[in-house]
Amino acid sequence: MCGDRTAVNGNAASADKPLHKRTPYESVGDFLSNTANFKIIESTLREGEQFANAFFDTETKIKIATALSDFGVEYIELTSPVASQQSREDCEAICKLGLKSKILTHVRCTMEDARIACDTGVDGVDLVIGTSSFLREHSHGKDMVAIEKAAIEVINYVKSRGVEVRFSSEDSFRSDLVDLLQLYRAVDRVGVNRVGVADTVGCATPRQVYDLVRTLRGVVSCDIEVHLHNDTGCAIANSHAALEAGATHIDTSVLGIGERNGITSLGGLMARMMVGSREYVMSRYKLHKIKEIEDMVADAVQINIPFNNPITGFCAFTHKAGIHAKAILANPSTYEILSPEDYGLNRYVHFASRLTGWNAIKSRVEQLGLAMSDAQVKEVTAKIKQMADIRPLAIDDTDSIIRSFHLELQEQK
Amino acid sequence: MCGDRTAVNGNAASADKPLHKRTPYESVGDFLSNTANFKIIESTLREGEQFANAFFDTETKIKIATALSDFGVEYIELTSPVASQQSREDCEAICKLGLKSKILTHVRCTMEDARIACDTGVDGVDLVIGTSSFLREHSHGKDMVAIEKAAIEVINYVKSRGVEVRFSSEDSFRSDLVDLLQLYRAVDRVGVNRVGVADTVGCATPRQVYDLVRTLRGVVSCDIEVHLHNDTGCAIANSHAALEAGATHIDTSVLGIGERNGITSLGGLMARMMVGSREYVMSRYKLHKIKEIEDMVADAVQINIPFNNPITGFCAFTHKAGIHAKAILANPSTYEILSPEDYGLNRYVHFASRLTGWNAIKSRVEQLGLAMSDAQVKEVTAKIKQMADIRPLAIDDTDSIIRSFHLELQEQK
Repeated sequence: MCGDRTAVNGNAASADKPLHKRTPYESVGDFLSNTANFKIIESTLREGEQFANAFFDTETKIKIATALSDFGVEYIELTSPVASQQSREDCEAICKLGLKSKILTHVRCTMEDARIACDTGVDGVDLVIGTSSFLREHSHGKDMVAIEKAAIEVINYVKSRGVEVRFSSEDSFRSDLVDLLQLYRAVDRVGVNRVGVADTVGCATPRQVYDLVRTLRGVVSCDIEVHLHNDTGCAIANSHAALEAGATHIDTSVLGIGERNGITSLGGLMARMMVGSREYVMSRYKLHKIKEIEDMVADAVQINIPFNNPITGFCAFTHKAGIHAKAILANPSTYEILSPEDYGLNRYVHFASRLTGWNAIKSRVEQLGLAMSDAQVKEVTAKIKQMADIRPLAIDDTDSIIRSFHLELQEQK
Repeated sequence: MCGDRTAVNGNAASADKPLHKRTPYESVGDFLSNTANFKIIESTLREGEQFANAFFDTETKIKIATALSDFGVEYIELTSPVASQQSREDCEAICKLGLKSKILTHVRCTMEDARIACDTGVDGVDLVIGTSSFLREHSHGKDMVAIEKAAIEVINYVKSRGVEVRFSSEDSFRSDLVDLLQLYRAVDRVGVNRVGVADTVGCATPRQVYDLVRTLRGVVSCDIEVHLHNDTGCAIANSHAALEAGATHIDTSVLGIGERNGITSLGGLMARMMVGSREYVMSRYKLHKIKEIEDMVADAVQINIPFNNPITGFCAFTHKAGIHAKAILANPSTYEILSPEDYGLNRYVHFASRLTGWNAIKSRVEQLGLAMSDAQVKEVTAKIKQMADIRPLAIDDTDSIIRSFHLELQEQK
């Protein structure tokens, strides 16, 4: 049922050739789905700046923005110019770079913030206001009528400046649904370019995201952006669910950095979308640059790439168990839904453990250019497994066992 | 719509008291959902042993198994005793510990493996066989009739030994749906305890998981286990979707370690399930032990806890942006769906950056026991933001700025 490398909806851009027979769920297309027709709003320089360890100086911001633009993201979102003097100057500087990506800045939904934002030269202004009962009580205290009035005034102002405008609620999944829909309909009617749905606390499940976006898709005609936090580890899956429901834009940051444990990661979204929409993704984004960009940002905020990071985690393409290794050597698709070559990376079959099968050792023997019969490979595999029961084996160790066994064979001749 | 701390289905175990008004999607219950009635099959000592860096000696295995049993997982799954002599001895040793958790071992679906497994003294045997067209071609080459015949023979044997038995397909989401359902129905009829659905390559989306499990729920009467890989970052969300569809058992490993970038993580699943089924989770699992267990396993396999790990990532409860900090200080629920206290951890409000708001500084001034008016706090906040524009600030730096400003105020008196 997985749409691996197979088009799953009627979108022109996803006309990949199926590599295998369709299975029942695969053939269920959906004309509202945007899984093969989405845009990325890359927020490493806004949400990412809210990450505990982030301090981006001007040079680093320019380096990251340039790399993201080269990668192919459609939008780059920057910290509010109201946050500090340097934030404002950096925003102006990045606008002047003439990058391919459109530049956005993210401000509170007030006339003052909107005016300062438009003055920086951005292509678009992302307005945000809290709408949940929690936030209305504890944050700005406005009621929904006042929120709607303020929103419309600010949206009209930004439009009058000839600048693209998005209006987003905050904490959308703990907001009153009817209030929310009424607000979105009102801003859609005055011509907002996009509305944003935000899972600010990271509480939403994929089905909740799907349901809310699908409902909203029937209420507004403008684009729909989602901003999804990762507190419960669902940000990537929730992004996919949003696209299935008809969302058009996904917020990401490199490695997912942001407030608390962050949002949808750019690389994770790529991994997810490659499975069902390979051709679309490859036509827009330079995937072989993902590792370089992640390393750059990890370095800037002084973190390690998580061991389990999609695509670039150090073991994402490492195979270990005997039955896995055997099949992978025959055909990588057996145990891989992503191909390391697409990202300029390599596959690695682990053959130095107690779980090692003789097929992996046979492959290694061949790589080492040694001649052995299958019976001999099985014999040396038993020796390796015996040793691996006693202590961890490095590749060198295994190679030494193989070579010394081969030497013995030669001497016996 | 998020079911935060609010019961969302009719399950007796989830009778949490709602903290806020229900919103439309929240009130949609579902009698098949097991989100508040599930069991954990903890596979750190099986799937986790397939992680590139894993080498568990007997002592480490016993330490991990004991900690997991104390934590409260219902099942602990061990590497096949057929893998190596030491694997077999360790399996026997762990069975003799008399842990609260049931002990399982995971073997190929053959009579020989099943016999050796039963001889170790395990409570249950997890049988696995590949069913996808990829695997049938490149791995064991059996057709479905032969698979069904072998499965029934082995299941009957394990049952005759008085041992619990699960039958799982491998790569279920790339298998033929009809073949799969036929096979599961056949093993259900001979009285298998559980069937397993496995996303072996990590390709499935939450909706695909939901659809397959829901379909299967109508076909078999036994329990349903899911084993979900994380190649596209969806393992936690997919586990939740499986429970919504009626699955009963979720496979996890500590930190998600396993083949490639692993499976559903134990801590991540806890974070996800706490949102909707807080009372159920707290009644079964000792959540304040999660950090200790993760540290133990991270140490054993020589990895760092990912910066963005749910619950225990170093910044999971760190708040930085001014508007966030302000609201968090008024009421933590504003920007937190999880409470650090539930896990024996602390909240941290970041107040040393250009995004700092004066509310965070006011709170820090109070923590430092200094007296300042709001106007004075705003003045020192401006100084801190100015400094943070120039270089990263440590807590010490901010405290020094606050203290020296306070000293100036005293001298002016």
